[in-house]
Amino acid sequence: MAEQPIIDFWLSLGSTYTYLAVMRADDVASQNGVTLRWRPFSVRKIMQAMDNRFLAGKPEKYAYMWADIARQAAFYGIPANVPVPHPITEFDLAHRVAILGMREGWGIDFIKDSFRRWYEFRREPGSEPNLSDTLHTLGLDPAAVRAAADAPDIATTLEAETAEARALGIFGAPTFVVGGKELFWGNDRLEHAINWAKTGRIG
Amino acid sequence: MAEQPIIDFWLSLGSTYTYLAVMRADDVASQNGVTLRWRPFSVRKIMQAMDNRFLAGKPEKYAYMWADIARQAAFYGIPANVPVPHPITEFDLAHRVAILGMREGWGIDFIKDSFRRWYEFRREPGSEPNLSDTLHTLGLDPAAVRAAADAPDIATTLEAETAEARALGIFGAPTFVVGGKELFWGNDRLEHAINWAKTGRIG
Repeated sequence: MAEQPIIDFWLSLGSTYTYLAVMRADDVASQNGVTLRWRPFSVRKIMQAMDNRFLAGKPEKYAYMWADIARQAAFYGIPANVPVPHPITEFDLAHRVAILGMREGWGIDFIKDSFRRWYEFRREPGSEPNLSDTLHTLGLDPAAVRAAADAPDIATTLEAETAEARALGIFGAPTFVVGGKELFWGNDRLEHAINWAKTGRIG
Repeated sequence: MAEQPIIDFWLSLGSTYTYLAVMRADDVASQNGVTLRWRPFSVRKIMQAMDNRFLAGKPEKYAYMWADIARQAAFYGIPANVPVPHPITEFDLAHRVAILGMREGWGIDFIKDSFRRWYEFRREPGSEPNLSDTLHTLGLDPAAVRAAADAPDIATTLEAETAEARALGIFGAPTFVVGGKELFWGNDRLEHAINWAKTGRIG
């Protein structure tokens, strides 16, 4: 069997549109014979460094974003009790737990469940009670996970991943990267990325 | 025959993604039995008032945008010699001529041809030689058109249209508005707007 094309799926907890991608990306990829590599990183760190204030101080953009997400969530058949809290407060811990989870094999489930609780119950990912509820659902001990996520090498990995994202030219989330260089920004570019990986065209 | 749904197509000359919409929106709308009402307005005036600096000072976003537009233009089969000059310098005159053209019946052809020359020859819409070349192609006298576009009521109409766009919550171009209130921002939301106008769902 030929090797499947690989797409890096750069995602950040607390990124509003990333929710839509997180809930559907694996299904779309597997239906298309593409392997997704989930890469949690801190998009906020990059946006702060770039002074990229996508939403702050822009109520019209906020209002539009929630309406746009609600329409798409209805189309995908996933919950979206918009507006959800944004920006989130505990993004650093959320990302360190996600990095730990990716190492230990429960990262994707953690990310999906964190996002679902954010949009279903309006509880921030990485904060209580979302964090402990999600970890309990995965059969994990929140205190032990928090302690493990405080290990210095977890923070180092998160920083290295974020630095790699920035070096790739990533400025927002989600971003899909094909062949380690072709960027596709946004949930609405997932199909473009998949087609590109397979044919070198977006459709 | 039942009345066709109407979608307002708010567009600005000099808006990079508007090019993709301008070149295909009429075809997509007519294939779907929807009437498009072309509404030129000054998105830059709104963005300046909102301090919405979408691209300025963000080389990563610029690089991404040109790649994204090039991929989509290839898909649609239209020319896109990216990067094209941006931001454009003469956006006020460009919009006043477009407003005049909408009144006199040649506005859509003027907008399409201005955009095509911008992306095919990298010549700014509203500046020479794009402006005169486009008007000549339409069989119009550039000096006469410039004089007519200087009439105060043209500027008044442009201001009123821009004020209406702002009151609707528009913050970017292109924006499609269904039923006078539901906003769909971006060329990539044209199909959402059309489906919404017909069914109240995006797909």
